[in-house]
Amino acid sequence: MPANTQELISRISAQAKQARKAILTMTTLAGSGHPGGSMSSIDIMLCVYNTIEHNPAQPQMPNRDRVIISNGHISPAVFSVLGLMGYFDLNDAIAQYRLMGSIFEGHIERRVPGVEWSSGNLGQGLSAGTGFALASRLNKIPYNVYVFMGDGEQQKGQISEARRFAVKYCLDNIIAIVDYNELQISGSIHNVMPQNIRKNWESDGWKVIEVNGHDIPQILTTLDNARAFKQPTLILAHTVMGKGVSFMENNAKYHGSVLSETQLESALKELGTEMELKKYRKLRSEFKPGNNPQNGYLFEPEYKIGKPLRYQTDSDCRSAWGKAIADLAKVNTAAETPIVVLDCDLATSVKTEEFAQVSPQNFFQCGIMEQHTCVMGGALSICGIQTFWSDFGVFGIAEVYNNQRLNDINHTNLKTVLTHTGIDVGADGKTHQCIDYISLARNLFGFRVICPADANQTDRIIRWLINKPGNYLVTMGRSKLPVLKKMDGTLQYDFDYSFVYGKADVLRDGNDGSMWVCGTPIAKAVKAVDTLREEGIFLELLYVSSPLHLDLAQLKASAGKGIIFSVEDHSVNGGLGTSIADGLATNSLCAKLVKIGINQYPISGEANELYHWAGLDTASLIATVKKFLA
Amino acid sequence: MPANTQELISRISAQAKQARKAILTMTTLAGSGHPGGSMSSIDIMLCVYNTIEHNPAQPQMPNRDRVIISNGHISPAVFSVLGLMGYFDLNDAIAQYRLMGSIFEGHIERRVPGVEWSSGNLGQGLSAGTGFALASRLNKIPYNVYVFMGDGEQQKGQISEARRFAVKYCLDNIIAIVDYNELQISGSIHNVMPQNIRKNWESDGWKVIEVNGHDIPQILTTLDNARAFKQPTLILAHTVMGKGVSFMENNAKYHGSVLSETQLESALKELGTEMELKKYRKLRSEFKPGNNPQNGYLFEPEYKIGKPLRYQTDSDCRSAWGKAIADLAKVNTAAETPIVVLDCDLATSVKTEEFAQVSPQNFFQCGIMEQHTCVMGGALSICGIQTFWSDFGVFGIAEVYNNQRLNDINHTNLKTVLTHTGIDVGADGKTHQCIDYISLARNLFGFRVICPADANQTDRIIRWLINKPGNYLVTMGRSKLPVLKKMDGTLQYDFDYSFVYGKADVLRDGNDGSMWVCGTPIAKAVKAVDTLREEGIFLELLYVSSPLHLDLAQLKASAGKGIIFSVEDHSVNGGLGTSIADGLATNSLCAKLVKIGINQYPISGEANELYHWAGLDTASLIATVKKFLA
Repeated sequence: MPANTQELISRISAQAKQARKAILTMTTLAGSGHPGGSMSSIDIMLCVYNTIEHNPAQPQMPNRDRVIISNGHISPAVFSVLGLMGYFDLNDAIAQYRLMGSIFEGHIERRVPGVEWSSGNLGQGLSAGTGFALASRLNKIPYNVYVFMGDGEQQKGQISEARRFAVKYCLDNIIAIVDYNELQISGSIHNVMPQNIRKNWESDGWKVIEVNGHDIPQILTTLDNARAFKQPTLILAHTVMGKGVSFMENNAKYHGSVLSETQLESALKELGTEMELKKYRKLRSEFKPGNNPQNGYLFEPEYKIGKPLRYQTDSDCRSAWGKAIADLAKVNTAAETPIVVLDCDLATSVKTEEFAQVSPQNFFQCGIMEQHTCVMGGALSICGIQTFWSDFGVFGIAEVYNNQRLNDINHTNLKTVLTHTGIDVGADGKTHQCIDYISLARNLFGFRVICPADANQTDRIIRWLINKPGNYLVTMGRSKLPVLKKMDGTLQYDFDYSFVYGKADVLRDGNDGSMWVCGTPIAKAVKAVDTLREEGIFLELLYVSSPLHLDLAQLKASAGKGIIFSVEDHSVNGGLGTSIADGLATNSLCAKLVKIGINQYPISGEANELYHWAGLDTASLIATVKKFLA
Repeated sequence: MPANTQELISRISAQAKQARKAILTMTTLAGSGHPGGSMSSIDIMLCVYNTIEHNPAQPQMPNRDRVIISNGHISPAVFSVLGLMGYFDLNDAIAQYRLMGSIFEGHIERRVPGVEWSSGNLGQGLSAGTGFALASRLNKIPYNVYVFMGDGEQQKGQISEARRFAVKYCLDNIIAIVDYNELQISGSIHNVMPQNIRKNWESDGWKVIEVNGHDIPQILTTLDNARAFKQPTLILAHTVMGKGVSFMENNAKYHGSVLSETQLESALKELGTEMELKKYRKLRSEFKPGNNPQNGYLFEPEYKIGKPLRYQTDSDCRSAWGKAIADLAKVNTAAETPIVVLDCDLATSVKTEEFAQVSPQNFFQCGIMEQHTCVMGGALSICGIQTFWSDFGVFGIAEVYNNQRLNDINHTNLKTVLTHTGIDVGADGKTHQCIDYISLARNLFGFRVICPADANQTDRIIRWLINKPGNYLVTMGRSKLPVLKKMDGTLQYDFDYSFVYGKADVLRDGNDGSMWVCGTPIAKAVKAVDTLREEGIFLELLYVSSPLHLDLAQLKASAGKGIIFSVEDHSVNGGLGTSIADGLATNSLCAKLVKIGINQYPISGEANELYHWAGLDTASLIATVKKFLA
């Protein structure tokens, strides 16, 4: 054996001992955590970190290999390895583990130097990994991606989606590693949920190699082989939960239970390492939050925005979206980093086919695999790539709510363009009528929702969004809508219009009351308000494009008129009306709020008929206003 | 060939022709729908319906075979077959398809006689199917279950979860059928998302047999064989999209596009059937909604409720839940239909291990497959089985939001008991701290959320819930909590307490303001309010166990005190505070609302420290009240 390999093996073995000590110490000190899986995966994790391209002093080095930990609860292992590699002082991690205010949380977070992706809810890491792997190709910076996963985790269906994507797009730089310790919380994986992991992966076209997950020379050779395959490869690592401490080995209990002090002492003796609990306890008590390093979430896209398109006749917002993004692709062909569009078998409906023709190398057909696509899109978007995913509302937020939550936690920059919102969807019925898009996003602290009023505003919004960091939902219905016009007949959102997030547009003035509208119903609302004007009722009319963040000054002004009608093609529970209610009640603004929207699961029907059914058509809006102003 | 088989084949062939006519007529008449997949699956669907145990005159016959259609957009095929079988007048389906007010909606719904499960968003039907299959065993009523799926649909990961469950539990009465027409919206499935469907299914232990999906004798033989295998079996049916009409065959366009009148005429000529569009158009115009048959959603459980348990010392709600359900299992061992508990590898944490010991045959370990478990649980629960699924909040609602939405649409009776809600979860951090449970359920029109205040109320609630139909979330934290006591020191929720949904409990009277509390913070709130009393500030204190449905009279009374503090271990966006805001604003109640809760993603830490961080501890609550009452 070459001298450097022997040296490498010795180094890793020594690190493994230190890491086990760190894992056990930090979890015992914290009083909670997951030592068992941390100890079964630590050997192979150290082998990976000792043989990848990376620089702990430069955690953002562009050509660094990416290591994604899907089963984020093995944070003790991750922090031990990263500390030993020099990303930070290991003593900090040991002392601060799970302590409020520390970056060393219970599940790994991106803000820890060396952690590429925050994780916790299982099944999502491989999707993120494919995003990083694809970004390597798109950014023309070669690097490898390693994704660590648990074996119980393999029960999650989303993983198969990520596998298929990797194979379709011939990702030759991704290696998955499963910590096959054959235990999960409730016992043996073979009893809890029998599964042929190898066959599952092979059935999706991955190469599978098995290794003894504690044999360092074997692991090193296996890693070399895996890298050389240049095809999606799984390393199935046979491991032992709690490996290294006799009374922990193969004991499912230690998946999520920590050692007592006495047990820790025994364990460390077995490992041949010192007991330093006192030292760390002291450090822990002295910890003051606030000196945390800031991880770089910076994303400053600088794309050309092209020339705005003007719509003069009835047009659907989704076509305007499609034209705008295709146009942006055209004017940015020379851009350093691409604009990417992801699709889940709906390009004809979400209108991204034109983009796919202009920019075929940046359009990715992900099939009917929304959960995978969502997370992969999030990962892509933190690699300097402005990433758009367009889908129906039910698929792009309802079906993937928790995936978007993970993207939120990861501070990604995914632009999810949701078409087919509301009962405007029509005859496809309730499983396809997305009426909770605002309400769901309300829970995602970092998300912004933008609802364009017409094709013109859609075009401006997309050209505004192209240079924005952060996660956005842009939502629109299905139908062609009139373009909004001012009272003088000119376009509301003409060439000179600039989109401002958080500011509603006052379309009509009036003092008899106020109507706040979000989304597709706006044209009918304009007609209603204009008709009422002719009858001597003057309502103020505001178009709200940012229903999660209302302008307080505007709300106060409108509340002053005594009554506010909220109008939305959305559930009355949780949408614009709820935002207004929140603003009124928390600011002691005494106005009557009348919420007009959907109050039960909708049904099949023509969009116009459904609008009447829901009280959203012009005549119904007029009648409702009159009823309350009588 | 036996005479009756020849007759059967002839009959099916004739029906197939009529069905194709019906499919094309109804979709053209409606102007929308999915004819292509309807025509590829119609032959095998007719073969199934002609050879299963069922009685169209008795759609609820207990021992009927169940047919589940996972890809609900092939509603034209489903309605054609059911009409031909005699479940209703086929002319009604043709004339009314997708017409507002008709039961024949764009995607199939349970309220159509013969439809067992509403569907629309792909990937979920096999999970439902396993629920029906399992119910057969649990109810001791033998029947078979057939699950129709699309081939593009196979890209969804959830299907693999359902497969594994079926094999683990040796479901010998389930047959899956994939309509392998090799096309999806964006083209060939092999291009859109390459996948080895056969290998995928075999890797999860299913038997796979292939058949020509348009060769009726072959299909009939295959069905007989599949039934005889008595193991989970997939019939991979090679079909042709648009089969039966030359210009439709193998044309992906017709997945979701309908024929023009001219094309319809050609098509019907090819099929050798009459063009009756005018007739149906007339029927359509004469349709008056309202005479729809009511499908039986009735579920009237009658379990014994046992004797309430009384808690006198600090206790965690989840242990009280676990003890209650175990007790209910014990006193109902002689019940006709079982009480079932589903687990996703968390029994030790969600405290259902005792139930598992008492009632092992009714406890199902589903592994880390939450989306599958959710839908399967929903299906089980409409088979007369009171079904509980207990999981962490993030898994039981956030991760499965759209699955619960499907359960809502299906009027199921699933009782989802969510433990580990709130920052009370502690050091596991944001991916495990569920702070959106009320907000998410707000969108599910049929769902009720119950948040018990302490172990005593938990016990009563579970014993109340055992005999309730409908979908519920019951939510609780992780920690031990003080049992609530009245001012005189006796228990708030003693033996004589009866739970009433929708009614908040007035714990303290006062006129200086009102505090409404939901969930885990209540004990701290009681302490705060009692401390304030000693300082001369008298707050009314209400415990809200049903945050989605507030009592208006109570809200009016509290609003009359001028200021309401809402307190919850939940996001301030969308929880109790939002319910109160909605109630205040829509009822013109002018009170100041101060929302106390979580306003950003939480972090790791001890639960008590996190409560202080979030302003939910006793001292902070006192300070906040004083600040606003100053």
